[in-house]
Amino acid sequence: MRVGVLTGGGDCPGLNAVIRAIVRKGVQEYGYDFTGFRDGWRGPLEGRTVPLDIPAVRGILPRGGTILGSSRTNPLNAEDGVRRVRENLAEQGVDALIVIGGEDTLGVAATLYEEHGVPCVGVPKTIDNDLSGTDYTFGFDTAVNIATEAIDRLHTTAESHMRVLVCEVMGRHAGWIALHSGLAGGANVILIPEHRFDLDEVCGWITSRFEAAYAPIVVVAEGAMPSDGEMVLKDESHDSFGHVRLSGVGEWLAKQIEKRTGKEARTTVLGHVQRGGTPSAFDRWLATRFGLHAIDCVHDGDYGKMVALQGTRIVRIPISEATAELKTVDPELYAEAGVFFG
Amino acid sequence: MRVGVLTGGGDCPGLNAVIRAIVRKGVQEYGYDFTGFRDGWRGPLEGRTVPLDIPAVRGILPRGGTILGSSRTNPLNAEDGVRRVRENLAEQGVDALIVIGGEDTLGVAATLYEEHGVPCVGVPKTIDNDLSGTDYTFGFDTAVNIATEAIDRLHTTAESHMRVLVCEVMGRHAGWIALHSGLAGGANVILIPEHRFDLDEVCGWITSRFEAAYAPIVVVAEGAMPSDGEMVLKDESHDSFGHVRLSGVGEWLAKQIEKRTGKEARTTVLGHVQRGGTPSAFDRWLATRFGLHAIDCVHDGDYGKMVALQGTRIVRIPISEATAELKTVDPELYAEAGVFFG
Amino acid sequence: MRVGVLTGGGDCPGLNAVIRAIVRKGVQEYGYDFTGFRDGWRGPLEGRTVPLDIPAVRGILPRGGTILGSSRTNPLNAEDGVRRVRENLAEQGVDALIVIGGEDTLGVAATLYEEHGVPCVGVPKTIDNDLSGTDYTFGFDTAVNIATEAIDRLHTTAESHMRVLVCEVMGRHAGWIALHSGLAGGANVILIPEHRFDLDEVCGWITSRFEAAYAPIVVVAEGAMPSDGEMVLKDESHDSFGHVRLSGVGEWLAKQIEKRTGKEARTTVLGHVQRGGTPSAFDRWLATRFGLHAIDCVHDGDYGKMVALQGTRIVRIPISEATAELKTVDPELYAEAGVFFG
Amino acid sequence: MRVGVLTGGGDCPGLNAVIRAIVRKGVQEYGYDFTGFRDGWRGPLEGRTVPLDIPAVRGILPRGGTILGSSRTNPLNAEDGVRRVRENLAEQGVDALIVIGGEDTLGVAATLYEEHGVPCVGVPKTIDNDLSGTDYTFGFDTAVNIATEAIDRLHTTAESHMRVLVCEVMGRHAGWIALHSGLAGGANVILIPEHRFDLDEVCGWITSRFEAAYAPIVVVAEGAMPSDGEMVLKDESHDSFGHVRLSGVGEWLAKQIEKRTGKEARTTVLGHVQRGGTPSAFDRWLATRFGLHAIDCVHDGDYGKMVALQGTRIVRIPISEATAELKTVDPELYAEAGVFFG
Repeated sequence: MRVGVLTGGGDCPGLNAVIRAIVRKGVQEYGYDFTGFRDGWRGPLEGRTVPLDIPAVRGILPRGGTILGSSRTNPLNAEDGVRRVRENLAEQGVDALIVIGGEDTLGVAATLYEEHGVPCVGVPKTIDNDLSGTDYTFGFDTAVNIATEAIDRLHTTAESHMRVLVCEVMGRHAGWIALHSGLAGGANVILIPEHRFDLDEVCGWITSRFEAAYAPIVVVAEGAMPSDGEMVLKDESHDSFGHVRLSGVGEWLAKQIEKRTGKEARTTVLGHVQRGGTPSAFDRWLATRFGLHAIDCVHDGDYGKMVALQGTRIVRIPISEATAELKTVDPELYAEAGVFFG
Repeated sequence: MRVGVLTGGGDCPGLNAVIRAIVRKGVQEYGYDFTGFRDGWRGPLEGRTVPLDIPAVRGILPRGGTILGSSRTNPLNAEDGVRRVRENLAEQGVDALIVIGGEDTLGVAATLYEEHGVPCVGVPKTIDNDLSGTDYTFGFDTAVNIATEAIDRLHTTAESHMRVLVCEVMGRHAGWIALHSGLAGGANVILIPEHRFDLDEVCGWITSRFEAAYAPIVVVAEGAMPSDGEMVLKDESHDSFGHVRLSGVGEWLAKQIEKRTGKEARTTVLGHVQRGGTPSAFDRWLATRFGLHAIDCVHDGDYGKMVALQGTRIVRIPISEATAELKTVDPELYAEAGVFFG
Repeated sequence: MRVGVLTGGGDCPGLNAVIRAIVRKGVQEYGYDFTGFRDGWRGPLEGRTVPLDIPAVRGILPRGGTILGSSRTNPLNAEDGVRRVRENLAEQGVDALIVIGGEDTLGVAATLYEEHGVPCVGVPKTIDNDLSGTDYTFGFDTAVNIATEAIDRLHTTAESHMRVLVCEVMGRHAGWIALHSGLAGGANVILIPEHRFDLDEVCGWITSRFEAAYAPIVVVAEGAMPSDGEMVLKDESHDSFGHVRLSGVGEWLAKQIEKRTGKEARTTVLGHVQRGGTPSAFDRWLATRFGLHAIDCVHDGDYGKMVALQGTRIVRIPISEATAELKTVDPELYAEAGVFFG
Repeated sequence: MRVGVLTGGGDCPGLNAVIRAIVRKGVQEYGYDFTGFRDGWRGPLEGRTVPLDIPAVRGILPRGGTILGSSRTNPLNAEDGVRRVRENLAEQGVDALIVIGGEDTLGVAATLYEEHGVPCVGVPKTIDNDLSGTDYTFGFDTAVNIATEAIDRLHTTAESHMRVLVCEVMGRHAGWIALHSGLAGGANVILIPEHRFDLDEVCGWITSRFEAAYAPIVVVAEGAMPSDGEMVLKDESHDSFGHVRLSGVGEWLAKQIEKRTGKEARTTVLGHVQRGGTPSAFDRWLATRFGLHAIDCVHDGDYGKMVALQGTRIVRIPISEATAELKTVDPELYAEAGVFFG
């Protein structure tokens, strides 16, 4: 039995931990061989491989990034893509494919499995935590810890100068990182894509915070938007990974706040720092368990499934279920945080 | 409406976050007044109180420990204890009591509620994560992160000198910290109280690790025990909080390993460092949500209940249910980790 | 004897440690009383004070920011400023003034001492490490650690996607933070204000790094500039603290690199995160020693002096000496780092 | 030109950074070849080598430990040791040897150079910071940061339970780690080997701290001793690296304090955690600069010298000078810290 592994989409702390767990259990318990495909779906599409065995996964558990590289290549959009993928899998003698990725990467796996019978197993990966069917995805906890530590630091500088500090965090379509790090960091305002914000209300919270003789911290997801649509951002282009470039909501917001409240405001855009480096303990644990259960799926011949966390258990759900709908922040959960605003 | 709050048992990162959330929501949304009871159940027993209002909870979110102090006093064991508690609650005008603590502290709340009608709401707290009815307790994630960071550090020193490094972590009756930090830290052996270990097997794993030209890391919970009961520990006394003093399983194990394998072995006992300091983002988030839901219980007059985490939702369960049985590591979960041993 | 204390300019981790050491030694060893002046020189100018005694400095050692607040007010530019400062000092019964600040704040102290006989003692503070006469200033080590940790994180994301990552750090006029964090973080290009960079050379290093199959990290001080002056930044206004707003050299550079090398490039601007939060152990130690020696200066009646670090000793130098000239990066030191470029 | 490199003695964060800098500059600027000797002096003694080139040093900057391994083998004590070392150097074609180590390792280098003409260059390494001739050694700052973070954590648990917490840190003969981390962590008592402590005085400080309603933290170097010599430690054997095993002064002290003050006391022994893991930014910077200057010594044919930090400059001093005398804590410096005791 030979198993192929690929990682697609934006990088995420914990990818290497998944790969290591798959290989360790696959080799030691099931006696499988492995083929690493380079750079996401470009690997099977173009036949780009790397050796993947026990020595290759030594020491990678605590390291961010992915030893397999990543890309956003979609073989379904490539000429003759499905045929080329199947041929390359066959040429490598690959009997099953474990696909670690987000909505797009897994979407390809769902299609290849359902329409073309390619034996795929999925592992969910999104730093934004917005995949359905799983309580959490790895990388998210690391990002939230990094953002929270930054917010902790911003508090002291805000207080010393009695300024507004706006911290822009990741989250184009879902506000999970903003909500969790904002709550954990004691932010006075948290703005998320799921709930259009009212600038007057935001400025009201800021003013009331200053009246209590404290300086406010605003945590804003990069995808948050004002209710009246007046925001003019400096740049909305997308990169080749589908990440929007720094969209500038943080800077725009700081300027609006300065104009309306008369207080000094500064912005920090955390950016890529949130998705690199060593994973948190939780993410290493979750990624490792995902890897162990993914290779079990292969062993059981249970294809078309994705491993997922529900409570403290790892379960299997159809890949297509996970990618059907974005998991956004529930309005009730967001409302719960409102007691800390202002 | 006046609400009393107390924290009992060993300290745990996140206690202050719970207190803050209770007071913020209680004052701002429900208009309640608060009384802080000092040092766990000793507070209501002896009438020891501190003021508890919005200014008192400013800035405490990121701080470890508890501003209310703690103790292991059990009013049920004190002469006339129940009467004294009730009198002191009445004297303070306290209409409801939020009790933040572990098995023992919550056990008192269950009895006072069930047998004496004292209106209590519970918030689960145990760094060891061994309370039933909740997926996680706050403080656990912080402890696991600290232990994992220590294990990361031990790897490099083990490799440089080709020595065995034994890391003893907390966990008298349950191996959660050992299991999670051992998996996250890439330990080569993980020993937990739920599974008596065989010294020959342990030495076998260690020898095979050296044969692969790597140095082994052993993570051992303080309550782990050998299968043949030969362990002679240096000290088994208990402190006034029921914590056993450093029991010495780590040091004992290192000596046994040296004797049997001929390799140098060293022990690090993490001790109190695991339970102090600023909480992780996850623990701040969980503790904050527990606090918000506990005060909601009071508002709903839903007494005798404890808040708990199930998946990503906060639910309410009878306090007595949580304290009925210790939540230990499932044998299957422990077996899952075995692929990394040796 | 009553001693006044003020902190001026941008905040810096370690300010509270200085204040604590001054008060602890002043009260316990010399029996002094203290007056805290609020918000830098605005305090003495407008008679804004806060109580400053042992309880006021409890627990502040590990906290960033300054309990005294800060501002950039210059009494020498205020109408009748010198007279008002002297009157307020006299009214408070202040016999000596300890001034903690950077070039501007200390410059005022030098003038007040030399031209008006105000008994001042200086403590150097600049996160940029660009004050003459002292090997290091506190806050710098913390900033370098934060920047280095960020660079560590960026490496993994750069490698996973084979992208250029540009990290913009503080340093308007001096490249100390860029040089130290760049060396410590293993950057492939380090650009500092003291040395105008050649864009072709930078792109050459980047290309050669990719040729070795690695992704490059560029660390750029916010004040770095290209040799041919073609850079058009988005914003060059100054805030009320004299900090330039995000000048945009990082983003500009990323775009130039993309255009010239055809590789994807991303920018992270660390911003205020570098100057907030808990100080590193080195900064707490240095700040504490500065505080102890500053109060000794007062005790010795040794005014007009600033404490400074030379090797491992704390010495006293004339304040005017420290502010005479900016301490920039020596060309030889910068050249030493060049072996790691590319 | 072929240069040999070895690392001896206990491991220390920054060793890999030195090795990397030596190789990068040696290969790129001087065109040298390198031979890595394994496990300290055992390498040249037994002819144990590893390849050492640019690929071998990729990615090692942030990693603790040493890729060359270490040992405490002394060739001067081995039969025919000097001859064997010279023969192995000749056989490998090694023209110069860079020796990275502490007192013992460098002492061998001094003898081999002075008495046998072996062309050696030294790089000082001691986590304890007790080598003469250099302001700091790398690894020390990392150890102090780790100890300080631990002390920060112990504060909150001490306060919550009003207990004494004793933190035992490294430092057999010199109290640098205890002094720096104790000052940085706000310890209430700091005990170092250079100054025998009086148990009554220590208990006096502890009692006065409790009287101020705070819980005391005691930082004690492992080599600290009471003035009346009554201490009975549990174990004083040395390991093969000359490190004493956990000597037990911390635990002994906690018991004495409990007995004399009636307060609960707990001990944390940080142990090996202090010397492993990723180096701090300062240590990476210092280690890198040491490496660059060491290879310059080789290039200049300046043998018998050790690189050293004086202020912010790297200088060269005779190796024998550095190992002549232990650098201990100056009584005046220790007295300076006394203002914070109690």
